[in-house]
Amino acid sequence: MKNYNISIIKGDGIGPEIVDEAIKVLNAAAKKCDFELNYKEYLMGGIAIDTTGVPLPAETVDGVLNSDACLFGAIGGEKWDTLPRELRPETGLLKFREEMGVYANLRPAIIYDELVNASTLKPEVIQGVDIMIVRELIGGIYFGKPRENDGFKAFNTMVYTKPEIIRIGKTAFELARKRDKRVCSVDKANVLEVSQLWRDTMNELAKDYPDVELTHMYVDNAAMQLVRNPKQFDVIVTGNIFGDILSDTASMVVGSIGLLPSASTGDKTAIYEPIHGSAPDIAGMGIANPIATIVSAAMMLRYSLNEVKAADMIEEAIKAVLKDGYRTKDLAAFDAKEVLNTTAMGDIIVKYI
Amino acid sequence: MKNYNISIIKGDGIGPEIVDEAIKVLNAAAKKCDFELNYKEYLMGGIAIDTTGVPLPAETVDGVLNSDACLFGAIGGEKWDTLPRELRPETGLLKFREEMGVYANLRPAIIYDELVNASTLKPEVIQGVDIMIVRELIGGIYFGKPRENDGFKAFNTMVYTKPEIIRIGKTAFELARKRDKRVCSVDKANVLEVSQLWRDTMNELAKDYPDVELTHMYVDNAAMQLVRNPKQFDVIVTGNIFGDILSDTASMVVGSIGLLPSASTGDKTAIYEPIHGSAPDIAGMGIANPIATIVSAAMMLRYSLNEVKAADMIEEAIKAVLKDGYRTKDLAAFDAKEVLNTTAMGDIIVKYI
Ligand SMILES: CC(C)[C@H](C(=O)O)[C@@H](O)C(=O)O
Ligand SMILES: CC(C)[C@H](C(=O)O)[C@@H](O)C(=O)O
Repeated sequence: MKNYNISIIKGDGIGPEIVDEAIKVLNAAAKKCDFELNYKEYLMGGIAIDTTGVPLPAETVDGVLNSDACLFGAIGGEKWDTLPRELRPETGLLKFREEMGVYANLRPAIIYDELVNASTLKPEVIQGVDIMIVRELIGGIYFGKPRENDGFKAFNTMVYTKPEIIRIGKTAFELARKRDKRVCSVDKANVLEVSQLWRDTMNELAKDYPDVELTHMYVDNAAMQLVRNPKQFDVIVTGNIFGDILSDTASMVVGSIGLLPSASTGDKTAIYEPIHGSAPDIAGMGIANPIATIVSAAMMLRYSLNEVKAADMIEEAIKAVLKDGYRTKDLAAFDAKEVLNTTAMGDIIVKYI
Repeated sequence: MKNYNISIIKGDGIGPEIVDEAIKVLNAAAKKCDFELNYKEYLMGGIAIDTTGVPLPAETVDGVLNSDACLFGAIGGEKWDTLPRELRPETGLLKFREEMGVYANLRPAIIYDELVNASTLKPEVIQGVDIMIVRELIGGIYFGKPRENDGFKAFNTMVYTKPEIIRIGKTAFELARKRDKRVCSVDKANVLEVSQLWRDTMNELAKDYPDVELTHMYVDNAAMQLVRNPKQFDVIVTGNIFGDILSDTASMVVGSIGLLPSASTGDKTAIYEPIHGSAPDIAGMGIANPIATIVSAAMMLRYSLNEVKAADMIEEAIKAVLKDGYRTKDLAAFDAKEVLNTTAMGDIIVKYI
């Protein structure tokens, strides 16, 4: 029987609750498909600060590097916001991404037909939207040096090199080949030198992908177009901070932030996590929606473990559960037949598998 | 009779057509209210490149500095996109902003009741939205040094000093005092040092405005919240590039990009312009919507010339014209009784004054 080692980072806030449901569902799918998952838990974020004094213990990095894939909940909370920067949960997360070398953050924004009304956008504008945002995750202004704040003047550096741009560009073009064969590269080349290099490099790279259409869009226009006509996009590729902003916009456009997964991949272990945060305000209340984490787990099966059948099974179970009107509280207003708490939602998905 | 000197920059694309209509309307309002406007035209952007070889002739800077206010159309077009960076229309615009010292870009995002359906967002989400975005316009990553692109590596610097932040913060707090007394400062302080200084400085400044509520939001969340629930915002204050992105998002949320004005103000001459671009694809066709420019002209009367009555007159005329079902082509789908071309729209607004 096949056997995989999965590293688990539950994190803070609702992290533990939603990851527990994902594990439950993973186990059900593994059983059906005859493979085994061994989990090992590691600390990161606020809980790591409280337990070990630092947001990213060395043990976590080693453990995840030695696993086949990592399932991650969410981190952060007000409690740790006033700590010095190097001790904050976010600093741990950024260091984690860097150590894992996960340069490509994939954020699909899709619509579940049953939840088309959950968006603030009109149904006809979003029905059928299927966007894949490819965000560069370990470069740009997030990691650029020099960076400084002397209390009077502060600055950060937005920097990219050609190899970094080629690397993320390839990810986008390869993905587009399996989709609608269109890549829209987003930058601010009319103002920024770093964006000019980005655009020039994408144009060069496009020559290796004659079957894929490459277009360019300025970031301000892209933010606008995501709201005006999201259906125009297939794959969007962009730098770290523009990707941070645009992927959140896109998730809100499709409306179902509680359902959207993400994968962060590079040359080492890939990380799978929901795109939503740790929601400390509802932690422990049993009302968190575990579906985004469960879909992330399915992505993990598909992309890191190549257990495609199990991944399909989970995704189909989720669709059926939504179709039959089961909802968590966040989606109670949208054609709910029954409103379930976090564990009951996990249970019903297991039942449908 | 009072007498004002207005500098006019028509620019490229639809710029000339829409500015001509605004001048027509300004003259009608001036006549009714007993003051006189003297116009002097200056070149900037593509037309300046074609005519003088540079995107911002020195004469334009001097002329505008010596005027009471500047009305500006739009610049740019594909024709000039492949020129070296220092010769592009956008470079002229940025230099112009810098020379004018217009550190505060005010972009109101409001809803015209008659056009509530023009947004892709549901009417109940946007009805009553009234946001004022205050964007820092002559600092941040747009102007930060060092900046370089050597073809292999490229970078820009996002930099702010405390005095710059205080200056734009004051603008936001003062504006909030005349509105709903709430300022939301947008940054990325969980990642960027420059944002941490921004946030700390806003917090300090807030002590001078105990009557105004200050909140903070990360830029990714703000982009999301603008789509999720735009009514929550009163004044948003943010840096140059975040403001670029968020103000375009906001304009699309309210749906009527052809109607939204902007003012760029500092210690010298203020600049008034529509928030939309030069739309080269429809230039010369007589279908451009001149209303955003006409509202910008009204803002100019109100804020730079203190001709409040004339400004009110123009704004009321526009509302009445929209109410009576007159539309330009871009808004033809939204309860149009009659679709007018650019000059006819100018004429009917004059008639209503
Ligand atoms: C928590 C924060 C540092 C992070 C980011 O900005 O990358 C988050 O917003 C995300 O998108 O994963
Ligand atoms: C044309 C461009 C340089 C400009 C900007 O980014 O400031 C425009 O997008 C704007 O918002 O006025």
